[in-house]
Amino acid sequence: MTTPTTQRLSLIDVVNRCDSFPYPSDDPSRLERLSFLTFIVDEIPCGRIHSSVVPHIVAFNEQDRPVFHITETNVSFMPWLSDYESRSDAIAQMLAIWRNDPIAFPSLTGWRNELYGVYTHTQTTNPSSTRQGAALAIERSACGLFGVHAYGVHMNGFVRTGPRPSDVQMWVARRSATKQTYPGMLDNIVAGGMGFGHSPGYTVLKESMEEASIPLEIAKGAVPVGTISYTKLSKDEKETQPETQVVYDLELPADFTPTPCDTEVENFRLWTMTQVLDSIRSGEFKPNCACVCLHFMIRHAVLTPENEEDYLEIVQKLNRRLEFPGPKRWPTFKEEH
Amino acid sequence: MTTPTTQRLSLIDVVNRCDSFPYPSDDPSRLERLSFLTFIVDEIPCGRIHSSVVPHIVAFNEQDRPVFHITETNVSFMPWLSDYESRSDAIAQMLAIWRNDPIAFPSLTGWRNELYGVYTHTQTTNPSSTRQGAALAIERSACGLFGVHAYGVHMNGFVRTGPRPSDVQMWVARRSATKQTYPGMLDNIVAGGMGFGHSPGYTVLKESMEEASIPLEIAKGAVPVGTISYTKLSKDEKETQPETQVVYDLELPADFTPTPCDTEVENFRLWTMTQVLDSIRSGEFKPNCACVCLHFMIRHAVLTPENEEDYLEIVQKLNRRLEFPGPKRWPTFKEEH
Repeated sequence: MTTPTTQRLSLIDVVNRCDSFPYPSDDPSRLERLSFLTFIVDEIPCGRIHSSVVPHIVAFNEQDRPVFHITETNVSFMPWLSDYESRSDAIAQMLAIWRNDPIAFPSLTGWRNELYGVYTHTQTTNPSSTRQGAALAIERSACGLFGVHAYGVHMNGFVRTGPRPSDVQMWVARRSATKQTYPGMLDNIVAGGMGFGHSPGYTVLKESMEEASIPLEIAKGAVPVGTISYTKLSKDEKETQPETQVVYDLELPADFTPTPCDTEVENFRLWTMTQVLDSIRSGEFKPNCACVCLHFMIRHAVLTPENEEDYLEIVQKLNRRLEFPGPKRWPTFKEEH
Repeated sequence: MTTPTTQRLSLIDVVNRCDSFPYPSDDPSRLERLSFLTFIVDEIPCGRIHSSVVPHIVAFNEQDRPVFHITETNVSFMPWLSDYESRSDAIAQMLAIWRNDPIAFPSLTGWRNELYGVYTHTQTTNPSSTRQGAALAIERSACGLFGVHAYGVHMNGFVRTGPRPSDVQMWVARRSATKQTYPGMLDNIVAGGMGFGHSPGYTVLKESMEEASIPLEIAKGAVPVGTISYTKLSKDEKETQPETQVVYDLELPADFTPTPCDTEVENFRLWTMTQVLDSIRSGEFKPNCACVCLHFMIRHAVLTPENEEDYLEIVQKLNRRLEFPGPKRWPTFKEEH
């Protein structure tokens, strides 16, 4: 289940494992070889589509009235698909076909039946209360195929052991051995994708109860403390996932023990910062969860400019500037309930 | 002294005022019009030099043995200037001449007599204890002319008023009306440039005592909590300043009042977060100090994804990825004392 390794990663290696899509300024030729087209909505770049996917889009286009306009560098909607419904429907119809081809589209075998919103600047100037300004919505497991910006929440659950901010221990989750992605790896106490129509605050409370059995009264103490953002390149180099995780800290009472509630978590352990750092360096953490821990360690002065030689670079890379627009506002609790 | 205005800036405007150099991906043609050459050391890009400065470098080159190699796009050292001393000396000699021409070089009228290190990756693999891996050092007031990465520390001094992280008030400094830069504007309780050979930890303690009369016993509670990084374009568009500020939080006892010690600060006021935000939006803060306050407000959940529509963009832009290398290690306290 666990994969004990003797490797010792530097912390900037750890960040780069999560933020694995090359920066244009670092290596333009590598980027060109990766062969992605830009996915454009409302004349705004919103994602990346690998060139190998284009023939499948062409095939779908030929079935009925063409839905997509395809050039050498871009994929966009035909002008008559100008609203949320028509665009979301067109993508859903195409994905329903692609789902039957697990060889070409392995990521769709992890179908979630959960929509993620895609945002453009033009839409957000005129937000609709039901769509939160989204230009369309796409099935979660297909976000990487279109390279559209996804959102989630991750929470650090910690216990104070002394007066200094670095005097803390952290609850670490072991992912279930049967989990589809990253089985058996280490995780934050709570984490989850942000479904379309949900806010970060709602999502973190829901996941706290579902994943770690944290009672609402305690979970309400979760505090948003910033974000991490990165773009992941899949191992087959055909999908990209730009992603923002809103990061929460929750100080837990010393006598509280989180317990797995659904089947996603094997167990929870309360670890010292040294234990957490060791496991990060040995590659036992799911990559984005490792970054959430590093974000915590920077804010709590476990890592300092004086004790970590890549401090400045780590801080900058934990917040990659993503090229694609995000939502201008999330639904409020009132709208969600 | 203060300039009351009726303007109301958005918070992303505030960040953009500090991080004013365009991103290549946003506007490549604007970047081209700005007409900067790359300053290269050890074959590594380390800064930007405006094309209008090049004739002055050529003139210096013609005085004696040529020091700089100039192409259409780059300025670099001649191969025989391969070490810290020879490079630093050459720049110092050139600046001594330029200082006499305040029309061409207005920023040198603010001569500080203080050196800033310039770092390259190749040097840092073989660090020297006296130079902290720097490839050369440049007078502080000339850093913008070469567009080299500068470093400083900024501290948030705050007082707790309740149990939640957002239940805080913040000490705000009013800059002296006679200060050379940003006179009369609002500032963080403590801030200062990081002179060559000093660490962030040393600098924040020194400035705490010098600027705000904070006794060492209290100042020692300052906690490093991350950085802000940005690239400033000067108003005349001839200088760039990539800069990283290591950010510290210092929780102050309710009965402690900082007092100006040197002539740089007019007064200190303890403000509510609402007062601080109002002054940020009305443009009364020195731009980078406003960003340090926003960084604080994000970590303390004064700003949240739900109450600030540009939350995701602000967080990303507060940590611009700077293209030029920084130091791999700072001197330790032992080396400094």
